[in-house]
Amino acid sequence: MRTKVAIIGGGPAGLLLAHMLTKQGVDCVVLEARSRDYVEARIRAGVLEQTTVDLLHEIGVDRRLDAEGIVHDGFALSIDGVPLRIDLKGLTGKTVTVYGQTEVTRDLNEAAEERGIPILFEATDVALHEVTSDRPSVTFVHKGQAQRLECDFIAGCDGFHGASRRAIPADRITAFEKVYPFGWLGILADVPPCDHELIYASHQRGFALASMRSETRSRYYVQVPADEKLEDWPDDRLWDELGLRLGAETAARITRGPALEKSIAPLRSFVAEPLRWGRLFLAGDAAHIVPPTGAKGLNLAASDVAFLAEALVDHYRGGTTTGIDEYSARALSRVWKAVRFSWWFTGLTHRFPTANAIDRKIQLAELAYIRGSTIAQTSIAENYVGLPFKA
Amino acid sequence: MRTKVAIIGGGPAGLLLAHMLTKQGVDCVVLEARSRDYVEARIRAGVLEQTTVDLLHEIGVDRRLDAEGIVHDGFALSIDGVPLRIDLKGLTGKTVTVYGQTEVTRDLNEAAEERGIPILFEATDVALHEVTSDRPSVTFVHKGQAQRLECDFIAGCDGFHGASRRAIPADRITAFEKVYPFGWLGILADVPPCDHELIYASHQRGFALASMRSETRSRYYVQVPADEKLEDWPDDRLWDELGLRLGAETAARITRGPALEKSIAPLRSFVAEPLRWGRLFLAGDAAHIVPPTGAKGLNLAASDVAFLAEALVDHYRGGTTTGIDEYSARALSRVWKAVRFSWWFTGLTHRFPTANAIDRKIQLAELAYIRGSTIAQTSIAENYVGLPFKA
Repeated sequence: MRTKVAIIGGGPAGLLLAHMLTKQGVDCVVLEARSRDYVEARIRAGVLEQTTVDLLHEIGVDRRLDAEGIVHDGFALSIDGVPLRIDLKGLTGKTVTVYGQTEVTRDLNEAAEERGIPILFEATDVALHEVTSDRPSVTFVHKGQAQRLECDFIAGCDGFHGASRRAIPADRITAFEKVYPFGWLGILADVPPCDHELIYASHQRGFALASMRSETRSRYYVQVPADEKLEDWPDDRLWDELGLRLGAETAARITRGPALEKSIAPLRSFVAEPLRWGRLFLAGDAAHIVPPTGAKGLNLAASDVAFLAEALVDHYRGGTTTGIDEYSARALSRVWKAVRFSWWFTGLTHRFPTANAIDRKIQLAELAYIRGSTIAQTSIAENYVGLPFKA
Repeated sequence: MRTKVAIIGGGPAGLLLAHMLTKQGVDCVVLEARSRDYVEARIRAGVLEQTTVDLLHEIGVDRRLDAEGIVHDGFALSIDGVPLRIDLKGLTGKTVTVYGQTEVTRDLNEAAEERGIPILFEATDVALHEVTSDRPSVTFVHKGQAQRLECDFIAGCDGFHGASRRAIPADRITAFEKVYPFGWLGILADVPPCDHELIYASHQRGFALASMRSETRSRYYVQVPADEKLEDWPDDRLWDELGLRLGAETAARITRGPALEKSIAPLRSFVAEPLRWGRLFLAGDAAHIVPPTGAKGLNLAASDVAFLAEALVDHYRGGTTTGIDEYSARALSRVWKAVRFSWWFTGLTHRFPTANAIDRKIQLAELAYIRGSTIAQTSIAENYVGLPFKA
């Protein structure tokens, strides 16, 4: 088998890239380790930046997004129960769209099928070869058969645990990491959301988030210690705690319901750089992870592959390697700013076990400053809706 | 001896308060432990917010300030040697004024003499009495004589080490503190400044600041470990280090000269609250200390006493205690925001011994975000020129 770009990983990063390349006439093949059902059932983030929505429009995978995506003009920052609305649209002219990553993946898969973009599901034992040569290849096992995909370039979109980043020799890549001393206990339930916008709560008892996937499906989180046990959190305890942290007014609007899913996720900031080794390019979670505060993960995957698609298309059109050579620096410039924002937003809203009394006072002073300053609100807003691609 | 307001401490806080009260016909007496010569020679901060300049105009102690103060429309943030100008005036319409605290103190003392405001220098062994009664008093020793000053109210403006804060029972006041793992090694020299504006440098080797007191007197600082010894820093080593951290372009403009003063100061964030106990009110360094990054210390003392003067004058005019009752909360609201800003600006520009590689990357990402965002620059600027008194 031969293609121009071998894309490892059929999550949003790999699928978006495949659509962008195909649209510009650059052949590619997507290799995905899991089954299509598995991939489409994975529960992930749900807030798309305007730029990500624009990309989906550009590749014409937007019918259901436009019909079902919920445009949010703002969100609330709740400070010990007292809400402060961040007016995204008023402050920046931009909005975000609530549309689950699960839905994005499903739409991209369906459109790929229609357009004949080859996706090989359950392609296991992926290995990368001759990445620094002119003729790299990827071997894998598919339907019991060992296969080799020859290509010009490899896009490593296979997530934090994938093979792509690990294929890079340790002395050619540097990893930066911060692990937070808490996790997010999340619950997904088929109940109407307590508010038509998201609520990020900084509370004496810890962080909480009231989010949603649709008008009838709610997603809630509370900060818990890193070593917390899920069995210590029966649904009712979780609903009670959410009410306490979101404040009485919001609590009164929470509709409880059985958990479709309930889990504890760790919080991590991680960046590996550079994003290129020879003819291998890393994109999305394969290269970087941010804490979910601010919902940047999927959106960074989208901006990575937008930069990468442009670079590859330029290369095939003009034979220039400028875009390819600049990919890592361009993508990382935006990635690091989002890592900074996610870290800052986490620091602003979470209680740290190592924090002392003055740290909480400083946190509250920052929240008071934000409440009193349109400029500070605009700074949050411009990061939240997504910094421009070229900055 | 009897007065309405006994002011303990003849630094800028106490002197400003004395002038504000006197202007409104409220009698006061200032007690200062040191000699006038000592007080006027103390080397302290040198950047006045617009609001502080406005206060000096209001009390009419502005002749020399207007003649010699240097209005700064901006400052530079130098990032590994590459400068980024923060255009204070363009972004906020406001400016800051470089005029040494030493000069402010001298002007306030001179004007007090002209106006007959009683200041007792070398008033030692100060003790506060019956602070929670209707008739508090202050005892002290002056010219070998034990004295008692009876009064309605006591203003504790006697700095971090003064008697006022210590007079409050431990269970009636809460102290919040953060000590930074580094200090500032400063040099004062009679040489022209390297730039007409201040330069705050965030450098791989550590923080540096190029500041000034006048067109012919420069003030420079470098971050050093908390346990650094002054004798390890002969002048030439300090000038060399400044050049490295400020970058080659700036280094070329540095004029070296003998040190008029050279010292290492620790960095600390400290707030004691509330600011009131009975008829005692704390103001300025007696209640709070900020790291010098951003030059907030003197300016917070000024806003404290502006709130306090207003409250006391209201009381004497209308017999209302509203202002007095609200003084602590009003002053602290502004104080905590400045504590937050000074902490943040310190974190942005200093290297922390406990920081790991990702922390420096996040710091650089924040600096890159600031470089690319007018909004982020405006947020810095509005804090730097001083947040409004009513927010």
